[in-house]
Amino acid sequence: IRCGFPEVVFGQGKTPEQVVQIVRRLAERNDRVLVTRVAAEMAQVVLEQIPEMAYHAVPRLLILNRSPDTPKRPGIVVATGGTADIPVAEEAAMTAELMDQQVVRLYDVGVAGLHRLLGHLEVLQRARVIVVVAGMEGALASVVGGLVSAPVIAVPTSVGYGANFQGLSALLTMLNSCATGVSVVNIDNGFGAGYLAGLINRLGDPA
Amino acid sequence: IRCGFPEVVFGQGKTPEQVVQIVRRLAERNDRVLVTRVAAEMAQVVLEQIPEMAYHAVPRLLILNRSPDTPKRPGIVVATGGTADIPVAEEAAMTAELMDQQVVRLYDVGVAGLHRLLGHLEVLQRARVIVVVAGMEGALASVVGGLVSAPVIAVPTSVGYGANFQGLSALLTMLNSCATGVSVVNIDNGFGAGYLAGLINRLGDPA
Amino acid sequence: IRCGFPEVVFGQGKTPEQVVQIVRRLAERNDRVLVTRVAAEMAQVVLEQIPEMAYHAVPRLLILNRSPDTPKRPGIVVATGGTADIPVAEEAAMTAELMDQQVVRLYDVGVAGLHRLLGHLEVLQRARVIVVVAGMEGALASVVGGLVSAPVIAVPTSVGYGANFQGLSALLTMLNSCATGVSVVNIDNGFGAGYLAGLINRLGDPA
Amino acid sequence: IRCGFPEVVFGQGKTPEQVVQIVRRLAERNDRVLVTRVAAEMAQVVLEQIPEMAYHAVPRLLILNRSPDTPKRPGIVVATGGTADIPVAEEAAMTAELMDQQVVRLYDVGVAGLHRLLGHLEVLQRARVIVVVAGMEGALASVVGGLVSAPVIAVPTSVGYGANFQGLSALLTMLNSCATGVSVVNIDNGFGAGYLAGLINRLGDPA
Amino acid sequence: IRCGFPEVVFGQGKTPEQVVQIVRRLAERNDRVLVTRVAAEMAQVVLEQIPEMAYHAVPRLLILNRSPDTPKRPGIVVATGGTADIPVAEEAAMTAELMDQQVVRLYDVGVAGLHRLLGHLEVLQRARVIVVVAGMEGALASVVGGLVSAPVIAVPTSVGYGANFQGLSALLTMLNSCATGVSVVNIDNGFGAGYLAGLINRLGDPA
Amino acid sequence: IRCGFPEVVFGQGKTPEQVVQIVRRLAERNDRVLVTRVAAEMAQVVLEQIPEMAYHAVPRLLILNRSPDTPKRPGIVVATGGTADIPVAEEAAMTAELMDQQVVRLYDVGVAGLHRLLGHLEVLQRARVIVVVAGMEGALASVVGGLVSAPVIAVPTSVGYGANFQGLSALLTMLNSCATGVSVVNIDNGFGAGYLAGLINRLGDPA
Amino acid sequence: IRCGFPEVVFGQGKTPEQVVQIVRRLAERNDRVLVTRVAAEMAQVVLEQIPEMAYHAVPRLLILNRSPDTPKRPGIVVATGGTADIPVAEEAAMTAELMDQQVVRLYDVGVAGLHRLLGHLEVLQRARVIVVVAGMEGALASVVGGLVSAPVIAVPTSVGYGANFQGLSALLTMLNSCATGVSVVNIDNGFGAGYLAGLINRLGDPA
Amino acid sequence: IRCGFPEVVFGQGKTPEQVVQIVRRLAERNDRVLVTRVAAEMAQVVLEQIPEMAYHAVPRLLILNRSPDTPKRPGIVVATGGTADIPVAEEAAMTAELMDQQVVRLYDVGVAGLHRLLGHLEVLQRARVIVVVAGMEGALASVVGGLVSAPVIAVPTSVGYGANFQGLSALLTMLNSCATGVSVVNIDNGFGAGYLAGLINRLGDPA
Ligand SMILES: Nc1ncnc2c1ncn2[C@@H]1O[C@H](COP(=O)(O)O)[C@@H](O)[C@H]1O
Ligand SMILES: Nc1ncnc2c1ncn2[C@@H]1O[C@H](COP(=O)(O)O)[C@@H](O)[C@H]1O
Ligand SMILES: Nc1ncnc2c1ncn2[C@@H]1O[C@H](COP(=O)(O)O)[C@@H](O)[C@H]1O
Ligand SMILES: Nc1ncnc2c1ncn2[C@@H]1O[C@H](COP(=O)(O)O)[C@@H](O)[C@H]1O
Ligand SMILES: [Mg+2]
Ligand SMILES: [Mg+2]
Ligand SMILES: [Mg+2]
Ligand SMILES: [Mg+2]
Ligand SMILES: [Mg+2]
Ligand SMILES: [Mg+2]
Ligand SMILES: [Mg+2]
Ligand SMILES: [Mg+2]
Repeated sequence: IRCGFPEVVFGQGKTPEQVVQIVRRLAERNDRVLVTRVAAEMAQVVLEQIPEMAYHAVPRLLILNRSPDTPKRPGIVVATGGTADIPVAEEAAMTAELMDQQVVRLYDVGVAGLHRLLGHLEVLQRARVIVVVAGMEGALASVVGGLVSAPVIAVPTSVGYGANFQGLSALLTMLNSCATGVSVVNIDNGFGAGYLAGLINRLGDPA
Repeated sequence: IRCGFPEVVFGQGKTPEQVVQIVRRLAERNDRVLVTRVAAEMAQVVLEQIPEMAYHAVPRLLILNRSPDTPKRPGIVVATGGTADIPVAEEAAMTAELMDQQVVRLYDVGVAGLHRLLGHLEVLQRARVIVVVAGMEGALASVVGGLVSAPVIAVPTSVGYGANFQGLSALLTMLNSCATGVSVVNIDNGFGAGYLAGLINRLGDPA
Repeated sequence: IRCGFPEVVFGQGKTPEQVVQIVRRLAERNDRVLVTRVAAEMAQVVLEQIPEMAYHAVPRLLILNRSPDTPKRPGIVVATGGTADIPVAEEAAMTAELMDQQVVRLYDVGVAGLHRLLGHLEVLQRARVIVVVAGMEGALASVVGGLVSAPVIAVPTSVGYGANFQGLSALLTMLNSCATGVSVVNIDNGFGAGYLAGLINRLGDPA
Repeated sequence: IRCGFPEVVFGQGKTPEQVVQIVRRLAERNDRVLVTRVAAEMAQVVLEQIPEMAYHAVPRLLILNRSPDTPKRPGIVVATGGTADIPVAEEAAMTAELMDQQVVRLYDVGVAGLHRLLGHLEVLQRARVIVVVAGMEGALASVVGGLVSAPVIAVPTSVGYGANFQGLSALLTMLNSCATGVSVVNIDNGFGAGYLAGLINRLGDPA
Repeated sequence: IRCGFPEVVFGQGKTPEQVVQIVRRLAERNDRVLVTRVAAEMAQVVLEQIPEMAYHAVPRLLILNRSPDTPKRPGIVVATGGTADIPVAEEAAMTAELMDQQVVRLYDVGVAGLHRLLGHLEVLQRARVIVVVAGMEGALASVVGGLVSAPVIAVPTSVGYGANFQGLSALLTMLNSCATGVSVVNIDNGFGAGYLAGLINRLGDPA
Repeated sequence: IRCGFPEVVFGQGKTPEQVVQIVRRLAERNDRVLVTRVAAEMAQVVLEQIPEMAYHAVPRLLILNRSPDTPKRPGIVVATGGTADIPVAEEAAMTAELMDQQVVRLYDVGVAGLHRLLGHLEVLQRARVIVVVAGMEGALASVVGGLVSAPVIAVPTSVGYGANFQGLSALLTMLNSCATGVSVVNIDNGFGAGYLAGLINRLGDPA
Repeated sequence: IRCGFPEVVFGQGKTPEQVVQIVRRLAERNDRVLVTRVAAEMAQVVLEQIPEMAYHAVPRLLILNRSPDTPKRPGIVVATGGTADIPVAEEAAMTAELMDQQVVRLYDVGVAGLHRLLGHLEVLQRARVIVVVAGMEGALASVVGGLVSAPVIAVPTSVGYGANFQGLSALLTMLNSCATGVSVVNIDNGFGAGYLAGLINRLGDPA
Repeated sequence: IRCGFPEVVFGQGKTPEQVVQIVRRLAERNDRVLVTRVAAEMAQVVLEQIPEMAYHAVPRLLILNRSPDTPKRPGIVVATGGTADIPVAEEAAMTAELMDQQVVRLYDVGVAGLHRLLGHLEVLQRARVIVVVAGMEGALASVVGGLVSAPVIAVPTSVGYGANFQGLSALLTMLNSCATGVSVVNIDNGFGAGYLAGLINRLGDPA
């Protein structure tokens, strides 16, 4: 339906057999297929059946890409508060890349060390759309939102413990952001943020 | 800082005197000022002091606009599930309009009567960015998100009763949307959605 | 007490020995016994003791049915939003079937791809009672409820992650449905929905 | 769309003017219109404009019924735990009655005085569908569900205080009912329960 | 301090070594020691060191009792809604027995089968204090409370799934009980209920 | 049914007319009737109709007592953490007194000033049953529970603000008490605690 | 007990008469008394009885200070995210001032406009203890905590709407702060923060 | 940046390789590095690579300390309610010790046995800053706060079960403390409390 975009499969809760079957069907008519939230064991089964795919362990993505050398459109930045947020950030970044987007990664620039973030101010302010991935208190989205006028897609993560309540804390922080231009996706939903960033960054392209 | 945009004041929790003072200061260097979440009583006090402003009772907005006749850029649709969501939708629509955006309103197209929504399919699919405003179960965001490939900004509202928990139900629905391209702002945050829609729709403009 | 109905045992939290003993007692005076939420390990123990039973791994049901060839009454549809909801849906469908109901299955017809659902409109509108099984945002119940005038029994599932809060999101969505004729059972309670669908579909039978 | 049924308007969150306008439009092609959750002040305004309607203060319903003398189908019982649940129960009962259902009311039969409930056992066991309305701990739904094999529609109410959390307690109780045949609607949603009871009780009618 | 009572140790979260050491110290000056929430592995280690103790696997209790043959005072009933509540009920019953109380057990008398409960009415009404242990919707406490005038100690259990929220549902039900004479202890806290029942039943003894 | 006890009516959510009617009926066969949670306006209406009753504004109780001079049994202490907890405490105390119990009041003995509490140690340790009423963090129940071996009935109150979440904080504190012999009633449920204290203190009486 | 400190009364939930009586008693032996959370109507009554006190409407404090000219110790900064947080901040500041502390106020320096905050960097870094008052997403505490090595006392406020859940959002943010040296008090508890800041800043004084 | 302080790494959510790399970098310019929340398996890997570090299994800390013999400043007390709180308490104590603080440990002094706590009254009242670590109901913070005028840093722990909701109960208790001078850190955040205690106790030192 949306030509030029990958077909996407939600891997969690499916059996490897179901995934193999769905990917096979999709791969008949698409040259890009993305499977998200794929555990290593499932990946192994699928790769044996469909060796054409590649598994990325950090973001737990299975990717079929038969046209890897298309030109990439610049404009997206993906930033994280900490190191432990990287898996979610990579899910976002690689999703956007599969949509022919070029992604600049700014990892571990959380607000407790503001100088690190401010050191990248120029990169942030040049971006057309920014994905901010943060757990614990999730304050990075507000701070970035206040520094730029580009749309900010905030991804709360379940990183942390105790009163983070598995990501609820970061989620509420981001929803209540007093910076303008910030919207939020589900906890740990790197895929959704990366996909949306791709959609937004394509606006303004000659159709 | 962001030229061409209105300056925005969060009216709730401020005294009328504070609002008057802030607006006066901003109006010295801006030709557009927007005050959100303004009760009728506050509006009356401010209008007496700053007759140049206009009060919109439904979205509870106070607006100063000294350049009302600028051309509007098409591309934004604001849709609501029900009639009771209109105040929040109008907050979104009028915010975007103050950013020189043209807004198409599709009100009362909730999923319990799918034919109404599908009757506007063409309008939805032509949009560059869509704001979906819905309370109760908030399912409209997912349905619209599944029908279009434009970015969808979902605004949960506190409309409903009982297990809507003042908007929590719609908020969770929207965060868990299985449609791609959907992001979410705070409950009843029409302003945030309208502003973000404006930011996104301007992407692709010659800078 | 309710003749013609299976006797039902809640398997979870019981030891295999307790289940064997309860089933043996019930089987003395009933020709149908259903045990729900049975893990594979428990099933193995019970089947060794009571080989007359059958285990269905997907819905985790143990069934004793000494009268499998009774005529089935048509009228029930069981629909799911996604693939991962199938275990719960099968629990509903097989429960109803054990009550001599005929079940039409419509799986993976979630609202993010409305055309799939609408392709089955006629089946839905001919149903006498519909079970809708959905996780994540659970919007399918509202959409189906708006398309039909038959009673809809909504089953939220714990499928999803993050702000789905183990099914809370789908549960609240369904409780707040603005479509009429929708009621809700516990998260993942396929059994309860299937049983209730059976009760409702038998209404109108000559007693 | 569903002929023979009243058209229904959700009164809460609308202005009296909006209600008048909607009712007028519906009344052109329907002989029954129901407006729910109508405050006394709104009722007064609407009745002045549309004197043909009647206002029922306890369930806060506005009803237009131009064919009041149709025969009623027996089969529905509406029961409440306490006196304070009566407004919600009446909303259910009068909704069903407007659908040509005959309703037996069993009010104030809560589980803390089991003899009262058991005194009506025969009435309960003869019912084709039962609406149980209860606040506080909401245990009545389980007890009734255990006594009958008819479908039970449970309506949690916000009656109570403290750890009732505005109806959450009764809601959870009812969702977790260990009796079979019980499903649940939103807190205080008497309308939804009455409407669903009407739908179910009509099953088996010659179409 | 409270002579005649067992000394009690909370086993969970301690190492076996800590438990051994604490029990040894207590056993120097007491002839009864009770350790609660003891996993089988911990029990094994402790029993090797202190063979004088006995482990009860169902309620996960370690007991040292050097005066097992004291006379027991009648008056306590422990009832459960289902089979899966028995471990918590046994924790209550054996705690009370270690305080020289005689306990009548009424297991699996939940409200979905009211006849079972009513068959024991005389036993319930003769009791001086009743412990009611129930999960899922927890309605048993209200029903028992309505049938007797003895104090009822309600123990919500985490038995169930989905919207039972690990015992929250039963907890809220019991706190909101509209029967008089009911009080509540923590989820799964059989020990606390049994101990309190013992305290209450001793009132009225010649000191 | 329970002779010698007052009949009790839950006033909240009833109309004054309903209360008058219920009290009249009860007063025909009882010489003590208690109505709880009665607002001043309702009290006025009822007192006009039934001048025999008395209204107590602090605990919001309406009481009919035709046998006020019966002997009182000693043994109950009612303690509060602060001054603002007194209405709930009085509800407990006056309920118990209407059951012919003698009540010692220890008000404003919260744990932030431990010396005040310890100054009453003897009174506490002589009690047969203690009601502890506390809001905010509700720690008083644990501290008292640790000082005495009598049963402690804990009443969380909604006193406080912010993260007290209308009494949830005190409720959870009390449910998690690590002192033995503590059980809990609903938030602000002074009546329930007083009634239960009466039941317990009567144990041991010659029947 | 703590000489040199004001006596403090929690005004909320007390009657004006109770406050007058308590203040009178305290004022016999103290030259400073502070009453918190005092509504304007209560203040009026108390001031008529005790004209020596002063009422501060913004922080809703009643203060008796017979030794206003004592020297103040520097070291405390009170910062707010927005204008609407000022009442809570003033409660903190005036509480500390009554403890002979000198307070620097930095109001409206929220993270959405980072330049404002960074403009005060030197003041912040010179502080010995900082109180950060913020609502909505509450991110200011983390950002300040990352900029300084002084202890930061974070006060979440109920300012905001929707998913701020009356301060829960800011509370969780602050509890999960990834900056070191941050601790948190109750929502809107300016008093507690100011008092604690006073305690901390006095450390190191010659006793 | 903060000379004389250890550099701190949050171990959870990092791979052992990431930790090794970060510690190596930090150890080039610091003589003290602390890694928190380190599982035994991770510790083993890191120790093989960096044998200079030491692993403390109870608080799960990895410590590099090249200047172990510096003088310690007295003033800090760390107290726990129970034995199971010790791991969190040790995290606090060892963090403070690495900042050259001397720590007095008072373990297992919970409020259910007040005499144990009061036996240490002198130690508590001599402290300059106190860390209180408690799970279950968390009442210890209030009681200690009422006994001393030093700042109290409260650490709720996840110790307990049922309605402790993984530490929420203790967290709310501590936030609502009616004792002055109490602030709170995240559930199980011993590190944060120890670090803050170190910061506070250093105030008043000659800079
Ligand atoms: N990680 C993810 N989180 C949220 N939604 C997803 C994710 N991965 C895939 N999806 C959505 O799920 C749809 C496919 O679901 P399914 O048909 O169950 O495989 C895709 O079109 C996406 O919209
Ligand atoms: N999966 C299920 N979910 C909810 N209730 C169930 C389930 N399976 C059985 N039940 C109910 O539990 C009752 C049997 O419980 P038990 O006596 O514990 O085996 C049956 O009569 C059903 O009403
Ligand atoms: N605004 C406030 N928030 C929290 N605690 C307070 C507040 N005002 C006073 N307190 C505490 O309440 C105590 C007095 O309570 P009371 O005896 O009820 O007046 C004081 O010692 C303070 O610890
Ligand atoms: N156990 C802990 N709990 C909370 N915060 C911590 C903990 N351990 C370390 N931190 C903080 O996390 C920062 C380091 O985070 P990272 O760079 O992810 O290792 C430190 O500066 C501390 O502020
Ligand atoms: Mg911005
Ligand atoms: Mg879409
Ligand atoms: Mg329908
Ligand atoms: Mg039934
Ligand atoms: Mg009773
Ligand atoms: Mg005790
Ligand atoms: Mg800091
Ligand atoms: Mg103190």
